[in-house]
Amino acid sequence: MASTPVPIPGPRNIEWVGDADTGYLRLLDQTRLPNEVVYLDCRDVQTVWDAIKRLSVRGAPAIGVAAAFGCVIGAQQGAFDKAAEHLATSRPTAVNLFWAIDRMKCVTPSTPEKLLDEAIAIHAEDAEMCQRIGEHALGLIKQLIPEPPTPNPKSPLTFLTHCNAGALATGGIGTATSPMYLAHQRGQPVRVFADETRPLLQGARLTAFELGAGGLNVTLICDGMAGQVLREGKVDVVITGADRIADNGDAANKIGTYPLAVLADYHNVPFLVAAPSSTFDLSAPDGGAIPIEQRAAEEITEGFGTRTAPQDVQTYSPAFDVTPAKLITAIITERGVIRPVDAEHVRSIVGPEK
Amino acid sequence: MASTPVPIPGPRNIEWVGDADTGYLRLLDQTRLPNEVVYLDCRDVQTVWDAIKRLSVRGAPAIGVAAAFGCVIGAQQGAFDKAAEHLATSRPTAVNLFWAIDRMKCVTPSTPEKLLDEAIAIHAEDAEMCQRIGEHALGLIKQLIPEPPTPNPKSPLTFLTHCNAGALATGGIGTATSPMYLAHQRGQPVRVFADETRPLLQGARLTAFELGAGGLNVTLICDGMAGQVLREGKVDVVITGADRIADNGDAANKIGTYPLAVLADYHNVPFLVAAPSSTFDLSAPDGGAIPIEQRAAEEITEGFGTRTAPQDVQTYSPAFDVTPAKLITAIITERGVIRPVDAEHVRSIVGPEK
Repeated sequence: MASTPVPIPGPRNIEWVGDADTGYLRLLDQTRLPNEVVYLDCRDVQTVWDAIKRLSVRGAPAIGVAAAFGCVIGAQQGAFDKAAEHLATSRPTAVNLFWAIDRMKCVTPSTPEKLLDEAIAIHAEDAEMCQRIGEHALGLIKQLIPEPPTPNPKSPLTFLTHCNAGALATGGIGTATSPMYLAHQRGQPVRVFADETRPLLQGARLTAFELGAGGLNVTLICDGMAGQVLREGKVDVVITGADRIADNGDAANKIGTYPLAVLADYHNVPFLVAAPSSTFDLSAPDGGAIPIEQRAAEEITEGFGTRTAPQDVQTYSPAFDVTPAKLITAIITERGVIRPVDAEHVRSIVGPEK
Repeated sequence: MASTPVPIPGPRNIEWVGDADTGYLRLLDQTRLPNEVVYLDCRDVQTVWDAIKRLSVRGAPAIGVAAAFGCVIGAQQGAFDKAAEHLATSRPTAVNLFWAIDRMKCVTPSTPEKLLDEAIAIHAEDAEMCQRIGEHALGLIKQLIPEPPTPNPKSPLTFLTHCNAGALATGGIGTATSPMYLAHQRGQPVRVFADETRPLLQGARLTAFELGAGGLNVTLICDGMAGQVLREGKVDVVITGADRIADNGDAANKIGTYPLAVLADYHNVPFLVAAPSSTFDLSAPDGGAIPIEQRAAEEITEGFGTRTAPQDVQTYSPAFDVTPAKLITAIITERGVIRPVDAEHVRSIVGPEK
């Protein structure tokens, strides 16, 4: 599929500045958002490692891209192998991190020039992946929700999203956000409701920031307000990313996604999941095989820098929930649309023989 | 219905200290919860007025009780009429405030002794109302969820609630919390999941506090986690209060209640509303007639003294949502249980002829 690349809106999260021998990696420090737009200029491997570790760069695809550029810096200092080994320890559960570093290890000779070419290729492929997801998503949305004959600013195509599956998490225009940016670029009036996404407020801090910086019409709501927004008929489509998708299409994503899927179903609004094919774990037969991490109590009780709950209160804080395939209208990957969502259609799009 | 009154658990929110001529009103300052348990000793009418205005005392029933005691203080100072008039301006939308003050105005002669008797009666009747709601709710719950033959601490009767319809909001053991306290007092193992309730965190600050202070097993969750908690089969019954209930049983309550009702329905878990008969507005034919107040953006974007969203972001912040009658298993009032929830059954329990 050929389509004009959409420029990444707002501040770039990952950028190589200069040439292979003397250049450096510039990362947007996402821990300072939304209040400050501050860049980290990484001229040594440890600075890259720290940036990944402390979530200055986050999102599985973005971490992979940052680590690839980190390997170039290692080679500048004559320590490529050591850099590759060290960077792999920065986020031990990030599959894209290992994948990107392994790919860098296959470059021969491992000169800064050759490695920079490969890192730029990884970055560009990730941007292309995002763009393809957006094209597939927009095509599906046009089937599900026919456009008015003339674009009408008073009835924009309205999305509701959760957490941040955006440009800040990828090397391109994001996954769930990709159709929003594409439609906006093509002159279609677009509106986005962004859940703030407790406990860590990725929606308020990151999604509202990047969509606003990209010139989109974004409205921030608390997670518990999505039901009322849907009930008022304001939303055309709910779209989120995913952290891991099982063989049958059950999708794990940030806690709070599953209630949106139930609400979308109740209101007959399409619920879409946008994710690269690398998100699928076909060894997990269904969502029951996806472990749900528990997070620290302080994320709930001291989330805003102020203690907002009794000192000794118990909490229950699952990081993810699993949305069953039957509640997902379609899963959109860079390889195509999975619809209906079941094992047969998952395998037909992202199966090993593909 | 006769039942042993359950003592109000934890710190008392409203208490008269001393005799009619020299006594004073002691209010728990709820603005300092959950971090500090601080009392306001009100010895003049203005202090009572300020306490109501700045939400040190909150919840419609509790405001009425506090204003009644405030009238006694006015009489101590020989200015009962002026006190009654002034206190009525403290929260202009609080129906219970006007009701309580009107009732105090009917006391003759308006001596501190006579007025204190009336204020104590208003307080006691409110406590009785709470107790009756709890008895009715517990009776219904026993029909809906048969108890195990022997109480089993490993499978407690588990509630999920939202916001604070608790002892802190009433003159007794609360409305939604009443069956929790009653069951606990009677030796039944009880567990409560409390939604933190964004944006103002009444669940984290108030419900988790009062249930914990009352010795109940309470677990705080973010609003977006309720779906996963229900999906895991942890919840026997969802129960909330209500701000206003229409003739057909549609119920307005704190934003975030409606999604819980949809989720409870999806999981076949009973969804109960507990509210005094004074909550019904039979002049509203259905939920569409209940206006939804919009709240200030800062409650979402600067909830706790920290800016957590971009400076210029738009917000949408409805204070309430409306749960349609068809999603409500039953409404529990002090006069009895409305089930099924429709205009006929609403009128049979709280209609004007009753």
